[in-house]
Amino acid sequence: MSTPVSAADQARAALSRLFEPSDTVGLGLAAVVGAVDALRIARRELTAGRAIRAELYDLLDLTDHGSRDHLQEGLDRWAPRVADLAPERDLATLSRLGGRLVTPDSREWPGALEDLQSAAPLCLWVRGRPEIPDRSRLAAVVGSRDSTSYGASVTADLAAGLSTRGYSVVSGGAYGIDAQAHRAALASGEDGGLPPTVAVLACGIDRYYPAGNEELLRVIAERGLLISEVPPGSSPTRWRFLQRNRLIAALSGVTVVVEARWRSGALNTAHHAAGLGRPVGAVPGSVHSANSAGCHRLLRDGTAVCVTDAADVAELAGPLGTFPTGDRAREAATPAKEQDGLAIPDLLVLDGLPVRASTTVDKLAVVAGLSAREVMGGLGRLELAGLAMRTPEGWRRLKA
Amino acid sequence: MSTPVSAADQARAALSRLFEPSDTVGLGLAAVVGAVDALRIARRELTAGRAIRAELYDLLDLTDHGSRDHLQEGLDRWAPRVADLAPERDLATLSRLGGRLVTPDSREWPGALEDLQSAAPLCLWVRGRPEIPDRSRLAAVVGSRDSTSYGASVTADLAAGLSTRGYSVVSGGAYGIDAQAHRAALASGEDGGLPPTVAVLACGIDRYYPAGNEELLRVIAERGLLISEVPPGSSPTRWRFLQRNRLIAALSGVTVVVEARWRSGALNTAHHAAGLGRPVGAVPGSVHSANSAGCHRLLRDGTAVCVTDAADVAELAGPLGTFPTGDRAREAATPAKEQDGLAIPDLLVLDGLPVRASTTVDKLAVVAGLSAREVMGGLGRLELAGLAMRTPEGWRRLKA
Repeated sequence: MSTPVSAADQARAALSRLFEPSDTVGLGLAAVVGAVDALRIARRELTAGRAIRAELYDLLDLTDHGSRDHLQEGLDRWAPRVADLAPERDLATLSRLGGRLVTPDSREWPGALEDLQSAAPLCLWVRGRPEIPDRSRLAAVVGSRDSTSYGASVTADLAAGLSTRGYSVVSGGAYGIDAQAHRAALASGEDGGLPPTVAVLACGIDRYYPAGNEELLRVIAERGLLISEVPPGSSPTRWRFLQRNRLIAALSGVTVVVEARWRSGALNTAHHAAGLGRPVGAVPGSVHSANSAGCHRLLRDGTAVCVTDAADVAELAGPLGTFPTGDRAREAATPAKEQDGLAIPDLLVLDGLPVRASTTVDKLAVVAGLSAREVMGGLGRLELAGLAMRTPEGWRRLKA
Repeated sequence: MSTPVSAADQARAALSRLFEPSDTVGLGLAAVVGAVDALRIARRELTAGRAIRAELYDLLDLTDHGSRDHLQEGLDRWAPRVADLAPERDLATLSRLGGRLVTPDSREWPGALEDLQSAAPLCLWVRGRPEIPDRSRLAAVVGSRDSTSYGASVTADLAAGLSTRGYSVVSGGAYGIDAQAHRAALASGEDGGLPPTVAVLACGIDRYYPAGNEELLRVIAERGLLISEVPPGSSPTRWRFLQRNRLIAALSGVTVVVEARWRSGALNTAHHAAGLGRPVGAVPGSVHSANSAGCHRLLRDGTAVCVTDAADVAELAGPLGTFPTGDRAREAATPAKEQDGLAIPDLLVLDGLPVRASTTVDKLAVVAGLSAREVMGGLGRLELAGLAMRTPEGWRRLKA
């Protein structure tokens, strides 16, 4: 499925190797002069004049450019990589993998990425047949690599429930919570064109990292989507992991952290999502579990809302389907108690009614602190509700 | 320690038997004409004229008094109990128990109760030597009766931690979380005049309810405080439990729910506290535990803040002592990672440095996406930080 790549897209492919993710000077340069000329400037085939610099620094809101030459610093930063540029080779690798380059010119380009503004990626390297779904259909489920059995079980329930509700589960392809989320989503079957799960990687989409997840990542490439902003062959670095997290957050309509330690990359994803105004959920857990400390931190500082199941997450994500969500579903599922809905005087009468013996209206009036007339009215209503019965000696309580 | 009781206080004692808790008409009447005359009106020794009714209805904001005669309804409600009134006997019982009647005229009267406005109790029946502490020293720890071992363990930690921090632990004397909270606070010793724990009861302070907690309640009467707004001999009713919860919430500077089912009396206490503008905490737990569902409900709907230990609760309660609280304490206790505080370029260099081999500045520039100058600057800083070392072949990483 090799499709012709435009010059602009080929330049974007090249720049995605030249620039580290979120290199704002590089991204800004591409925004100002276009990818093709940005690449020529980076290659020193063209020189950026005063006007371009002014527009670039204005775009980046760099008011201190008098003292620092940010563009020159960028050129120096990119220079060591210029010799290795071979976008045709990268695109051929992509093609061989059955993948495609998705750029802002593509119909498939996720508009949600524009919320990243000057940090929006230049392009996405994508493997997998389905199109990237709209963010209203993407729910990120993330967490720490050293998950507990509790985290694994909650993740499986969440991911399966989200699949059932018509969401595609986004995660980072790592061990632990990520892998559990991908697996449970894959097991929940596919819904027409929607990928069951999407893995956003910090390395190239031809690399299976971590190695233990190779089989899983291959299945995702087959049935779901593998996405990265760095070209094939790129290795995962800490910086790329951190920046990858912003893509997970931006692509997804909601982000849920299932388990995270006090310091965890999953918190970084949560903060990216919150910064973008996306809803964030955190799953509570034992206060004795270090693996839930990060979730509790997010709950305490107000970054995240407490979510306990897929219905809660769907409620957080906003309206999509017709499933009853969150608290409303739980309220409906909780059996009402017999006294629910009773007026206060009736409750007082009910409280005063003995179960094993009978009592009189006068005694009830003293016990309940009500007038005889109120007691009689209350007894009549309780009788109708099947909660009180008349006896030869007066009244006694019936258990509903 | 029988102290003379004023006529007004004796009238309050009598009215506390005549009126159910939060009988706003009765409480309003006492506010308008004073306890002594309110008692005489209730006993039909006096009749409330138009002016008194007008003032009462105005106070109670009862605009529909044209259609209903609220005062007459009150008189009818109180009438069945008038014959049984014997405040001297109740006060004698109190005296025999070594207790005291605390009224708005007492120096010990908790000003915090005034936040209940028209639902403030008439008086408190109190057993125990220490004075009722200021609300800034009182932390309520409440939860369900059918607590789990998790709830018991968290409650014990919380109560002990709060004691250590100079709080007196308030709870309701019930089985489960309440009893655990009282016990742990008692075990943590006393701090001068502060009662280790305060039990606010729905029955008279001479009743040990539930029976299984008799021993515990006796110890609290001895070393802490037993408080009730209903007179000796009163039995606990559902209504009194609900109203007792408002006293726990009002007396305490902070209220924490440790475990609660989806429907639980502890949620009622939490809502009372929130309604009074008092901070409320909820302890997270397993999403699989029905005993935490009520806590998660409070977290979800924003009534409560997530608290995981006594430091969190103290932080929520506001400044009292000099203990480091909540997240700040946890942040300080979490060891920093070696890369914390590194600037981005230095982080990129660190990421690119091999541990087992050496590399060159030029290769690092390609890997890190930085200029050779930036790499050299970064290496210098990493060397100073003990994270990089020079080798004959170039540079390699040092594990901190």
